[in-house]
Amino acid sequence: MPTTTWNRHHILSLADFTAVEYDTVLQTAASFQEVLSRRTKKVPTLQGQVVANLFFEPSTRTRSSFEIAAKRLSADTLNFAASTSSMTKGETILDTAKTYLAMGTDIMVIRHREAGVPNAIAQEMDRLGVRVSVLNAGDGQHEHPSQGLLDLFTICTLIDPANPRIELLKGKKIAIVGDILHSRVARSNIWSLTASGAEVHLAAPPTLLPKFFADYFSEETTNSPIPIAPYPQPPVPHRPLFLHWQLEPALRDADFVMTLRLQKERMTTHLLPSLREYHQLFGITRHKLTLCQPDVKVLHPGPVNRGVEISSDLMDDPEFSLIQSQVTSGVAVRMALLYLIGSGKV
Amino acid sequence: MPTTTWNRHHILSLADFTAVEYDTVLQTAASFQEVLSRRTKKVPTLQGQVVANLFFEPSTRTRSSFEIAAKRLSADTLNFAASTSSMTKGETILDTAKTYLAMGTDIMVIRHREAGVPNAIAQEMDRLGVRVSVLNAGDGQHEHPSQGLLDLFTICTLIDPANPRIELLKGKKIAIVGDILHSRVARSNIWSLTASGAEVHLAAPPTLLPKFFADYFSEETTNSPIPIAPYPQPPVPHRPLFLHWQLEPALRDADFVMTLRLQKERMTTHLLPSLREYHQLFGITRHKLTLCQPDVKVLHPGPVNRGVEISSDLMDDPEFSLIQSQVTSGVAVRMALLYLIGSGKV
Amino acid sequence: MPTTTWNRHHILSLADFTAVEYDTVLQTAASFQEVLSRRTKKVPTLQGQVVANLFFEPSTRTRSSFEIAAKRLSADTLNFAASTSSMTKGETILDTAKTYLAMGTDIMVIRHREAGVPNAIAQEMDRLGVRVSVLNAGDGQHEHPSQGLLDLFTICTLIDPANPRIELLKGKKIAIVGDILHSRVARSNIWSLTASGAEVHLAAPPTLLPKFFADYFSEETTNSPIPIAPYPQPPVPHRPLFLHWQLEPALRDADFVMTLRLQKERMTTHLLPSLREYHQLFGITRHKLTLCQPDVKVLHPGPVNRGVEISSDLMDDPEFSLIQSQVTSGVAVRMALLYLIGSGKV
Repeated sequence: MPTTTWNRHHILSLADFTAVEYDTVLQTAASFQEVLSRRTKKVPTLQGQVVANLFFEPSTRTRSSFEIAAKRLSADTLNFAASTSSMTKGETILDTAKTYLAMGTDIMVIRHREAGVPNAIAQEMDRLGVRVSVLNAGDGQHEHPSQGLLDLFTICTLIDPANPRIELLKGKKIAIVGDILHSRVARSNIWSLTASGAEVHLAAPPTLLPKFFADYFSEETTNSPIPIAPYPQPPVPHRPLFLHWQLEPALRDADFVMTLRLQKERMTTHLLPSLREYHQLFGITRHKLTLCQPDVKVLHPGPVNRGVEISSDLMDDPEFSLIQSQVTSGVAVRMALLYLIGSGKV
Repeated sequence: MPTTTWNRHHILSLADFTAVEYDTVLQTAASFQEVLSRRTKKVPTLQGQVVANLFFEPSTRTRSSFEIAAKRLSADTLNFAASTSSMTKGETILDTAKTYLAMGTDIMVIRHREAGVPNAIAQEMDRLGVRVSVLNAGDGQHEHPSQGLLDLFTICTLIDPANPRIELLKGKKIAIVGDILHSRVARSNIWSLTASGAEVHLAAPPTLLPKFFADYFSEETTNSPIPIAPYPQPPVPHRPLFLHWQLEPALRDADFVMTLRLQKERMTTHLLPSLREYHQLFGITRHKLTLCQPDVKVLHPGPVNRGVEISSDLMDDPEFSLIQSQVTSGVAVRMALLYLIGSGKV
Repeated sequence: MPTTTWNRHHILSLADFTAVEYDTVLQTAASFQEVLSRRTKKVPTLQGQVVANLFFEPSTRTRSSFEIAAKRLSADTLNFAASTSSMTKGETILDTAKTYLAMGTDIMVIRHREAGVPNAIAQEMDRLGVRVSVLNAGDGQHEHPSQGLLDLFTICTLIDPANPRIELLKGKKIAIVGDILHSRVARSNIWSLTASGAEVHLAAPPTLLPKFFADYFSEETTNSPIPIAPYPQPPVPHRPLFLHWQLEPALRDADFVMTLRLQKERMTTHLLPSLREYHQLFGITRHKLTLCQPDVKVLHPGPVNRGVEISSDLMDDPEFSLIQSQVTSGVAVRMALLYLIGSGKV
């Protein structure tokens, strides 16, 4: 492991991540990627610690990724699923978190459909003066920092597997395409990619990238992202972010294309005409990729709606698709995050 | 660990617990409390053993507590949830238990909405001549022995952390307030607290503490608790138990106040007028506590209906509330129980 | 462990199992049976490997058996239940499998209500050139190979505990009774038992053992089992298989009687008149067993509908019933399968 100091106790958002922090995560994850290629893929780092996956919103994929990461660090894991919980019994979310604290949980990995829940739990833990760490595994439309970091890691290790670092992205053009308005993945990626010096281009139909979003994000106005009440964002330096309501200008000469999952329920709420039309206009296909750099790569946080956000054949094409790499990177990056926030406690 | 002999194979009820047994649990739990404060919170005691959590009634809190306890003893754990089980396929509960026995389970932790199920499973295991232990994690309105023991441990360690023992409670006044009629927690606590020599005062509206309950429990009649068919209770010595249909006489000069969870469905069955009126009459508030000893402490088995059984601010006040301590004690006490019934097998 | 070579990478079906493979499984399982009788029932064989239980169809019993088996080999386990998964989010089954592959899963244990899903996943893994193994834990009405192998192990170890091998079954008469048409258990058992040289007699009402089934299976026509599209079965040698639409000729002088679970929904689809009549005609009772060999034994894959497939008293009679042995054998056989397909990877 790299011998850097790590002072961040909770991982809630990428909004205020520093370049040093990004690089520490990338390098630590690279070390774990190496561990995962060994015969015995476990390290004793977090032995005796308890990692509780408190998933108030169901997610098999992210929960499994954190569970494997924790087990490979030799931590004990607990799974909490809201459906079978006492949430229905009138307990508050903070009460649930405090119960897991009192049972001896060391790290809480929290997913909730409302923005700000992980922050609120982290604040309560700090107020109580306890050493428990909170890791945001996706909160409403706010952030999904481990996804943002694993996307960053996937791209950086592609460019330099031996030494992934954010400066590798300087000057790269990255398109983020799809339902940006509702996407916590997009928000986390905007923070990390603009911090790295990449040129970030957002593309979506106006209903999924409305004017008020532009007001917050675009070059011409401010550079602070849409504030997620009640968590005011820190002021950020000038960030190279561009918005488009057509796909073409975002794709032109892009080095990487990040597609986002389209929640099908958006159509019932009249934000979209039809999946077919969406795919025609904003779905990524082999043909549309000819606009990009020849060695362009495509990412998607999964699960994919095949033939909607991305054509089915492109998704399975290892020449273009980084989707499987992203999943693998997810385990290494989550090991890194659990290690960085957890190793100080052991 | 204390070097006492432990002969109890199943933990089903506190009705016939001896003073020596209570003290053994308290002292063993104190040893584990110390383990939990170490860097590595695991001991290899139950390595290679399987602890199956057979929860026919859902419970995240108790199940997680047993799961952490088992993992900290290095046991392997299995979770069974009735909803996804073959119970719906026409198998009997004994068949399910025997299946887990045949798979090599060493300890079965059982919760069921019907009183007597853990006893029936334990009897069947004994009849089969197998060494599997059964631990009652709450059966209907009968008992919840690990909760009774963790409440006892919480109180005793508050008085003497270095040497918790039941004689510390001699002469203490303890009020149990709320839905006593339906509470397995109350039943287990009545056994342990009266055995310790504390003076136990029950307080509830008549619908939740009816005359027939009084007939069984009160000083003037017999001293045996309400018999849970088909488990005749052993004869018990004179126990200092008092019943009240108002809160005040129970609280006056009390050293500890145990509040009980109110099932909201009691109101639909016309046992209660309204939550608001219940809180006014029997809810514990800072003001009502002025009737008690100045250093009175409040307990609740959780999950709490904030503002019903107890006022929200009081619940969060570490000067009065032992609720978080109870959860922490729960892990240590459950480690002790699993250790005591399990270590003979290894 | 026996020092045989094992070349089968996936366990999908028993259709093409060789005599050497059967014997290797039986002998490996016997070694693990011995491990399970030790104080510490764990071996470090699969330490650091991940076994993912991908159960697209719920099953507590089989999932727990595989989970205990994996944990006793020191593997890390992941449980995936379709109900909380992204299957509802439009991802294909192959996408789900590839996600678990990318997370670092070494062995996938797969149950699905459609025949052929484990085969399809195994083919995809092979196409990708990865070393992940697939173990079929029951697919539709196709096969349930680990059940077939544990039944074989249960019978063979009864005859010679020290040296179970398939030649022990040569000349034995084995009756398989019940809903053969819909039973994946029956299909796997037909392969293993006929391969062993036992004489296999099927008995069921015509609706559950229709003529077209007979055309494929009976002596007089072909000897290949009912083909499960799209998996053409290999040609098989002459197998001693007989069909009966009454119970008596199947039971006469039988050494073993295998009963099958009756899905109660068969009656709503008019395949059965009533459970009562079914039990009268095809239910196994102590009285009907007098037709068999004096030391006849009865098996059932579980969960049993007591009083339907088998009388309740007979099920609990250790003189006749091997049902508990089957469950215990299940853990040893599944350890053997995980060991055989997994140990080459470590």
